[in-house]
Amino acid sequence: MEKPTLPKGTRDFGPAVMAKRQFIFDTIRKVFQTYGFMPLETPSMENLSTLTGKYGEEGDQLLFKILNSGDFLKDVPKDKLTSTNAKQLSFQICEKGLRYDLTVPFARYVVMNRHEIAFPFKRYQIQPVWRGDRPAKARYREFYQCDADVVGTDSLICEAEIILMIKDVFQRLAITDYTIKINHRGVLAGLAELIEAQGKETSLFVAIDKLDKIGEEGVRKELVEKGFSNSSLDKLFAILNVKRSNASQSALLTTKFESSDAGKKGLMDLKEVFILLESYGSDDTNVEFDVALARGLSYYTGCIFEVKINNVSIGSVSGGGRYDNLTQAFGDKEKLSGVGFSFGVDRIFDAMEELNLFPKNAQVSSKILICHFDDESFRYGLGILNQLRGAGIACEIYPDHTKLKKQLDYANKKMVPFTLVLGSDEVKSGQLTFKDMNKGEQEKLTIDQIIEKLN
Amino acid sequence: MEKPTLPKGTRDFGPAVMAKRQFIFDTIRKVFQTYGFMPLETPSMENLSTLTGKYGEEGDQLLFKILNSGDFLKDVPKDKLTSTNAKQLSFQICEKGLRYDLTVPFARYVVMNRHEIAFPFKRYQIQPVWRGDRPAKARYREFYQCDADVVGTDSLICEAEIILMIKDVFQRLAITDYTIKINHRGVLAGLAELIEAQGKETSLFVAIDKLDKIGEEGVRKELVEKGFSNSSLDKLFAILNVKRSNASQSALLTTKFESSDAGKKGLMDLKEVFILLESYGSDDTNVEFDVALARGLSYYTGCIFEVKINNVSIGSVSGGGRYDNLTQAFGDKEKLSGVGFSFGVDRIFDAMEELNLFPKNAQVSSKILICHFDDESFRYGLGILNQLRGAGIACEIYPDHTKLKKQLDYANKKMVPFTLVLGSDEVKSGQLTFKDMNKGEQEKLTIDQIIEKLN
Repeated sequence: MEKPTLPKGTRDFGPAVMAKRQFIFDTIRKVFQTYGFMPLETPSMENLSTLTGKYGEEGDQLLFKILNSGDFLKDVPKDKLTSTNAKQLSFQICEKGLRYDLTVPFARYVVMNRHEIAFPFKRYQIQPVWRGDRPAKARYREFYQCDADVVGTDSLICEAEIILMIKDVFQRLAITDYTIKINHRGVLAGLAELIEAQGKETSLFVAIDKLDKIGEEGVRKELVEKGFSNSSLDKLFAILNVKRSNASQSALLTTKFESSDAGKKGLMDLKEVFILLESYGSDDTNVEFDVALARGLSYYTGCIFEVKINNVSIGSVSGGGRYDNLTQAFGDKEKLSGVGFSFGVDRIFDAMEELNLFPKNAQVSSKILICHFDDESFRYGLGILNQLRGAGIACEIYPDHTKLKKQLDYANKKMVPFTLVLGSDEVKSGQLTFKDMNKGEQEKLTIDQIIEKLN
Repeated sequence: MEKPTLPKGTRDFGPAVMAKRQFIFDTIRKVFQTYGFMPLETPSMENLSTLTGKYGEEGDQLLFKILNSGDFLKDVPKDKLTSTNAKQLSFQICEKGLRYDLTVPFARYVVMNRHEIAFPFKRYQIQPVWRGDRPAKARYREFYQCDADVVGTDSLICEAEIILMIKDVFQRLAITDYTIKINHRGVLAGLAELIEAQGKETSLFVAIDKLDKIGEEGVRKELVEKGFSNSSLDKLFAILNVKRSNASQSALLTTKFESSDAGKKGLMDLKEVFILLESYGSDDTNVEFDVALARGLSYYTGCIFEVKINNVSIGSVSGGGRYDNLTQAFGDKEKLSGVGFSFGVDRIFDAMEELNLFPKNAQVSSKILICHFDDESFRYGLGILNQLRGAGIACEIYPDHTKLKKQLDYANKKMVPFTLVLGSDEVKSGQLTFKDMNKGEQEKLTIDQIIEKLN
């Protein structure tokens, strides 16, 4: 029999990695809850009718489809079987697919539960999603998203709180060198008006979004090919190229956007977000008003965000923005505006590994291993174990009677930080040999002293 | 456009239900960790070659298969398409399936990582599994399992600790009326020898396992049809029918099993488990040596467990047992024995709802909602919000300017227990109106007093 393997693009998470991942998840969950977001979980499977048509043609192709149970060919005529192509056939033999993101299931949930929900509705959702992408570095076929959205209000405190939550999460994770880029759909529209690119907005935004990667030369080349004049591009780069403070960027654009309603609205919103940050007692440290930030455009209508951890190989770890109609795709007539963002845990994990930021005690294992010389001390150890656990201390006893060396090797391999070594002396006196496995030091302590020391 | 729906047998978990589920998950995870178990997560998808043949023919039919990405018909000859049946075709167009339980992925993980693992390996795993069962009450197509297994040791403290963990979890969940049934494969073998049912063990065990449901008469009828004599059934029920204490059940069987090696081994193991419980400072309260407990037999080789919450509609919430070769199904030659058990969270949830056991504060929402009369108090409130969050208190501000009544209605609907009502008086004096929404009482407090009160 061949050795088993994992499906391409998927991973096991063993104990050491799980401990670090749980540290990130717990941090994000804690911050979401502190900001008043409530948990939601949706099924891994959705009807294909819920999923298709929501992610563009490329996204539809990346959906994992689930074969109907039982005789899935029952209702497919034999001639259809050979005359249709794979794509057409797939919809006849599959009704369900795996969740591709958390936004569409959230929208589906809101549509189905509209009358029970108290709006504004603040929900967070931490679940895996699946995409049939070609696996590559930092691109997996199963990965977690951590989303928080507020729907049912236009208030810009939601935008301000997204910034605060990102800052809070990063502070707790000890990530210090990062940039929260913010822009506004209205500012982009103003920019397009300014350089007279109406009707060619998409080409413009797609190009400038790549400024970081391909530089001014690359963007100019792409836009010239799309028919932009050099003079309009000079105007564009006069704005994009100069790094200014958020306030002076805003001041500059205010003079330029005098005749653009969309541009003025965008600037006003952004200014208000910065003012609100100050009302919270925070400021725009780590926040950069980036006129070139565009993100996916079909969906967002107000502020947009992207978060980059600096000086790591894959730094883009979070993004989001405001939309004015969450449930539109389900034909809902009542508009429901909102704003949300998403943390990519896998990328935060990779960045933290690269920066060596995980706390040493993130390893989830027993704090104490009880070792023993004979059956008497073994049985005595069980009572000790029970007392330690009663005090909330994770611990275990080496389950078999074996040499002390083997027991201590096990503690080292599992990175258990302390051991208790029990023999007939300890059983008699209650003075237990307590060993710090990292320092190599040991001392005699009573069980009460040990509990006090570890708590 | 039609209103979206959920796939059959799947569920959304909204905030109120999520809070309760998280309470159960957190409790189980905490207990697993306290007993030295380490977390593992495996992918939702496994290769079908990993999954098939592990769950019997019926299980294979319940596997959800995932359609291969892209042109899944590419390598299927046209004539094959029409000449093969659905089952055969499914393996040509699907390579992957969804996880059906947590044991097979665990075994697959152990086989793939054998040389890095420190044995005895204590792992826990809390993840959903998928089964294409016909949906029914308390039977879902996606549900969570919470498994803990120790592999690489024959020590009976593992069995004792399973009992201790179940007791610990139930104590934390305030479940008091429950029974942990325990039996041993050896005892069942001894029973079969005693009534001379060798060669008909499976029929015997399948029948007596149903004693709870169909009663003595039903079991007798089934076994008579399978060719058992009335005299052997009298012998059987002389043991099954009389409820005895664990100790006297054990004493009785010791006299009966004099000539059965398997039976004697089973009794010895069980006695040792009860002795170990006492060494831990525990006892056999809530534990019942049930000779009729059989469970799935192909897999287990030692002690077997089943846990029933009494006086609820679906009480069986946990089960497990010892096996002597976890990785056998993957053709592994080195035997790896272990023991494990699994909590069914959905059933524990239903039982706790039925018994009204969830703590009232299980609702995850903000502890405080800040309400405001005007823009000045709104902005003042943002600073208050920041101080509360800094103290770890989950809170939010009503994001829009609207009537106080609407703000308070929102707090009530979300079950937020406290509100702060801010107006110009509060902004001037710093004496904030703090309202207990359950009691309807309010008082004037400073922000420091409020933080002290809530922490």
